[in-house]
Amino acid sequence: MRRTRLSVIIPTVALAAIFVAALACRAGGGASAGASAGIQQLMQARNLSEENVTAALKTYTPTGVKDEYYIFASGGHSGQVLVIGVPSMRILKVIAVFTPEPWQGYGYGDQTTELLRSGDRDGMQLNWADTHHPALSETGGDYDGQYLFINDKANARVAVISLHDFTTKQIVYSDLIRNDHGGTFVTPNTEYVIEGGQYPAPLGGGYEPIESYQEKYRGAVIFWKFDREKGRIVPEQSFAMELPPYMQDLSDAGKLASDGWAFINSFNTEMSYGGNAEGNPPLESGASQNDMDYLHIINWRKAEELVAAGKFETIAGTRVIRLQTAIDEGILHLVGEPKSPHGVDVTPDGTEMVVSGKLDTHATVYSFEKIKALIEQKKYAGMDGFGVPILPFEETIRGQVEIGLGPLHTQFDGDGNAYTSVFIESAAAKWSLKDLQLIEKIPVHYNIGHILAAEGDTVNPDGRYLVAMNKWALDRFADVGPLLPQNFQLIDLTGEKMQLLADLPIPIGEPHYAQMIKADKIKPITAYTPVGINPNTDQEDPFKVVGGEEGIERKADGVHVKMTAVRSHFTPDTIRVKKGDTVHLHITNVEQAHDATHGFAIASYNINLSLEPGEHANVTFKADKAGVFPLYCTEFCSALHLEMAGYLLVEP
Amino acid sequence: MRRTRLSVIIPTVALAAIFVAALACRAGGGASAGASAGIQQLMQARNLSEENVTAALKTYTPTGVKDEYYIFASGGHSGQVLVIGVPSMRILKVIAVFTPEPWQGYGYGDQTTELLRSGDRDGMQLNWADTHHPALSETGGDYDGQYLFINDKANARVAVISLHDFTTKQIVYSDLIRNDHGGTFVTPNTEYVIEGGQYPAPLGGGYEPIESYQEKYRGAVIFWKFDREKGRIVPEQSFAMELPPYMQDLSDAGKLASDGWAFINSFNTEMSYGGNAEGNPPLESGASQNDMDYLHIINWRKAEELVAAGKFETIAGTRVIRLQTAIDEGILHLVGEPKSPHGVDVTPDGTEMVVSGKLDTHATVYSFEKIKALIEQKKYAGMDGFGVPILPFEETIRGQVEIGLGPLHTQFDGDGNAYTSVFIESAAAKWSLKDLQLIEKIPVHYNIGHILAAEGDTVNPDGRYLVAMNKWALDRFADVGPLLPQNFQLIDLTGEKMQLLADLPIPIGEPHYAQMIKADKIKPITAYTPVGINPNTDQEDPFKVVGGEEGIERKADGVHVKMTAVRSHFTPDTIRVKKGDTVHLHITNVEQAHDATHGFAIASYNINLSLEPGEHANVTFKADKAGVFPLYCTEFCSALHLEMAGYLLVEP
Repeated sequence: MRRTRLSVIIPTVALAAIFVAALACRAGGGASAGASAGIQQLMQARNLSEENVTAALKTYTPTGVKDEYYIFASGGHSGQVLVIGVPSMRILKVIAVFTPEPWQGYGYGDQTTELLRSGDRDGMQLNWADTHHPALSETGGDYDGQYLFINDKANARVAVISLHDFTTKQIVYSDLIRNDHGGTFVTPNTEYVIEGGQYPAPLGGGYEPIESYQEKYRGAVIFWKFDREKGRIVPEQSFAMELPPYMQDLSDAGKLASDGWAFINSFNTEMSYGGNAEGNPPLESGASQNDMDYLHIINWRKAEELVAAGKFETIAGTRVIRLQTAIDEGILHLVGEPKSPHGVDVTPDGTEMVVSGKLDTHATVYSFEKIKALIEQKKYAGMDGFGVPILPFEETIRGQVEIGLGPLHTQFDGDGNAYTSVFIESAAAKWSLKDLQLIEKIPVHYNIGHILAAEGDTVNPDGRYLVAMNKWALDRFADVGPLLPQNFQLIDLTGEKMQLLADLPIPIGEPHYAQMIKADKIKPITAYTPVGINPNTDQEDPFKVVGGEEGIERKADGVHVKMTAVRSHFTPDTIRVKKGDTVHLHITNVEQAHDATHGFAIASYNINLSLEPGEHANVTFKADKAGVFPLYCTEFCSALHLEMAGYLLVEP
Repeated sequence: MRRTRLSVIIPTVALAAIFVAALACRAGGGASAGASAGIQQLMQARNLSEENVTAALKTYTPTGVKDEYYIFASGGHSGQVLVIGVPSMRILKVIAVFTPEPWQGYGYGDQTTELLRSGDRDGMQLNWADTHHPALSETGGDYDGQYLFINDKANARVAVISLHDFTTKQIVYSDLIRNDHGGTFVTPNTEYVIEGGQYPAPLGGGYEPIESYQEKYRGAVIFWKFDREKGRIVPEQSFAMELPPYMQDLSDAGKLASDGWAFINSFNTEMSYGGNAEGNPPLESGASQNDMDYLHIINWRKAEELVAAGKFETIAGTRVIRLQTAIDEGILHLVGEPKSPHGVDVTPDGTEMVVSGKLDTHATVYSFEKIKALIEQKKYAGMDGFGVPILPFEETIRGQVEIGLGPLHTQFDGDGNAYTSVFIESAAAKWSLKDLQLIEKIPVHYNIGHILAAEGDTVNPDGRYLVAMNKWALDRFADVGPLLPQNFQLIDLTGEKMQLLADLPIPIGEPHYAQMIKADKIKPITAYTPVGINPNTDQEDPFKVVGGEEGIERKADGVHVKMTAVRSHFTPDTIRVKKGDTVHLHITNVEQAHDATHGFAIASYNINLSLEPGEHANVTFKADKAGVFPLYCTEFCSALHLEMAGYLLVEP
């Protein structure tokens, strides 16, 4: 573990002694006697313990001081991404991804609506998502601070966010799968963004009776090719692999020693599919019969070669390595993993994989070297029902650690320690990778799901902070009705013992996973330069408006309004059209000052743009209602912000 | 000011002395010498000043400790409401109001979609809002913790939120106006919710050329009648008053001495309407010519009587007291107010109104007693162009306080002090109501708009905390791209000097105003009881499903699915329909445990419900795509949450 300045930790038990000492020392005299009494009164008044005081001093972030880490957290079924500062544990921004969000103008103008609509499936408008696992782009297995990827479990989609301007750039999906969970995870140089499916269905869509589940339903994993230069996923360079109809769960990419490989665990190798009103067991019991499920071991580097060699079928536009091909070519293997696992996490050096079964009490540590040797020797314990070779479990593992009830996910520090979330016990467990011994547990509140450590899933973990991502928050915060926030708990890892520092309620959505990156790796722009950039293309917009060239022009395709925004007016500020006109607004915020954002709203027309400095936006609408419609800047941009207004006049 | 426990304040300058004293006292011996050195190291490591340390101890909120106040903040153009805890300054919840929000299932099921759609105007779907001014319900001029109202500036709408379950219950609007700003503000017993218009337009909609602005465009204020027993606004018992086409700005209701009256200020008494590309001045300069604008003084109690007596016209379904009637009946008066005011705030005892002009440097204090006497004496300085009597400015005021550049809004404490936001100076000013003397200014970062104090606009202010609602945040937080959060700054009012305690970035939307209420006044439910409540009606839903009565039935209007949700399954979990079927899902969460929320999502169908314990929801959709669509619970509700899943099977 790299020692940080904060690693010089005060034994908290001694703090009271200081105050008491200060009091005793100064008793009866000196100006500061009252002052030290004041501190004690403050501690008493707010019922703060000595541990609370150190936690306060470790997290309090004075005005104007910037956080040292960012957390990028999935926004759960808000469909968005949350950006959180550490150690202050303040939410700095909600980034709109899959759900329309008017503050950002996301989904209320042409470009962002087009982006959102590009994620529609089956001709059905999708205006939400269940974001689960964000993945920061990596170079050499370390976060590089350039891009963020996030999956939509509900509709099997993947989004690309640029950290250049903190906006969503792309949404992709393949009709191969209907639902995902094992994504997004990136390969060490962000060659691919991994999206593993979860609930099996007929590949490529279409109907098959559920009774044909074993025969016709399939799982799959997609390797989305990322073009770093373009900053976009390239679907035509991506590929997928067909998998048995187990419910594949989380995935992780190998790194260093295991670079070129991917690991996906699974549950429901029983291939139960519910039907609890039809005489079948519910999935929860149907999927919990076997003592072992299967860890999937995939050689994606070889898969890539097979695809290049044409050994794929195209299904729903996606190049798919069929299951039989994967078996024949030896790029897919299984190994048992204890009952219904939740997480598979590759160690920083890439030599091992840690799997925890939620119905098992252990963290199981697999050796990649052993796995690779067994694969090379073709030493199998047998085949599954689909002919996929199964490696002998006992020969793949280095050992197991007794963690507790309901271990789920594991992160790492730089000192050889692992941290596993323990759902049923509501605890975070620290254990030694070296000797597989449990070191310490700290209680969390309550029902921890994922866990994250500072850069804790990279080749180079920081080991300074841990965050428990807790699912239940009853009794933690002031009451807000039946729907409660979730609760992130920040834990200090720099001392002898783990110390709980702070609780953060999550006011929107249920984040599933998050990553924590050093703040100095993130270098976003403060304005779009030159003036007239369209953030969706990162290019100057063909319709950008230069000051002095504003105007209104009637063309064949409607009325074009070329408008600029600057404190405190739009030019032009009066838009005259006729009922039925198609109106094309082209608006450029010609400012370059940091934070000089303008909004643009028209009453009743469901239009609200957010125009950051230098940004250009287009919005097209049909003026199908005659009348007088005020338009105005929705940002409090200057003392005269209320005067940054005008009228859309729609003549009958 | 009521003294609170925290009012025993440590002179922060003395803190360093304590640590040094502790060190000196213990120098060379004792176990705590290292410890006190540790504290100093912690302060040094994190570069914390003594003032930072007291601020940290005043705000740090240990795990499980509940905040002492709630802030209810508008969510600006996010269209929502934010709930924030004080002193921890954590956002506890985003309440969905005007914008669809999938975490809450808001706008993704039948009931909430119907609620959202009830706010559509002119046949245009509105999926956002610009929420500005929340108003907590009041009894006797004091917050009672029952309801919250919020306006939508962009589309002139008002929403009702129940604090029983923190959900939106109603959205109302009148086609009388297109845009509002002077709302929501409630009368002292929540008889009415005030919604004042802002940008004038032809009353009731319809087109009129902008050149007829003075003749045909009008302002208006709506008094929405609130039925506390029903918890709903009753439009047919509401009324409005026509106003001149000035741009009316904020409003406030009189209380105690001024109960029965309402006050609305205005800008643009010049009646400029822009046209900057047509040879007119932009509104920002056109509206800033006059030295004085007009404060509108309305006798709403008498207006209510006039309406009861039939002295109204119905426009766009709303009973409107025409301007001439208001003049004839003596219920509308004007008085000059210094240039382009932003806020009008009635003092706690209701005897005075404070107005600040953003292009003037003063807070102007009007005496209600003087105003009332002048009205009774009909002592006018003249009439405006519409015949509205104007009171003589000098005779209405008690005095003016020199505040600084760009004073906007004023709040109060219980000790006779007022606090005014100073936009251009980026400061909060404390001044004495008694002698109209400026006491102190504290810098804020940056560009403060509204200001709020604990219960600071009631008859009984707390005076403990102040919050600066700052519009710009450059250099305050770790960078998040060109679009920045806003910044709330918490200020301690209990000491001799105001002390800045904490900064809170607002990660979504631009809150305009907020109110702070004591936490013990808010007593929300933790589950819906009995099982089967529809939160939109607060009643048991006619389709509620009782455990054991689940099933699927084909009826004339489609397939009805009666489903229950409980950890960890839906019953039934398999839904079989045919392509083209209309499907009616009726789902009851039969749990009563606090925080046992279940989600319900169907892949590709844009459906995501949030089913709080005891809640019932209905969702209707057309199964117009054949195939296999996984459904699942989007909440991590138990260790087997991934198994809380099933399939929608749509047979071709």
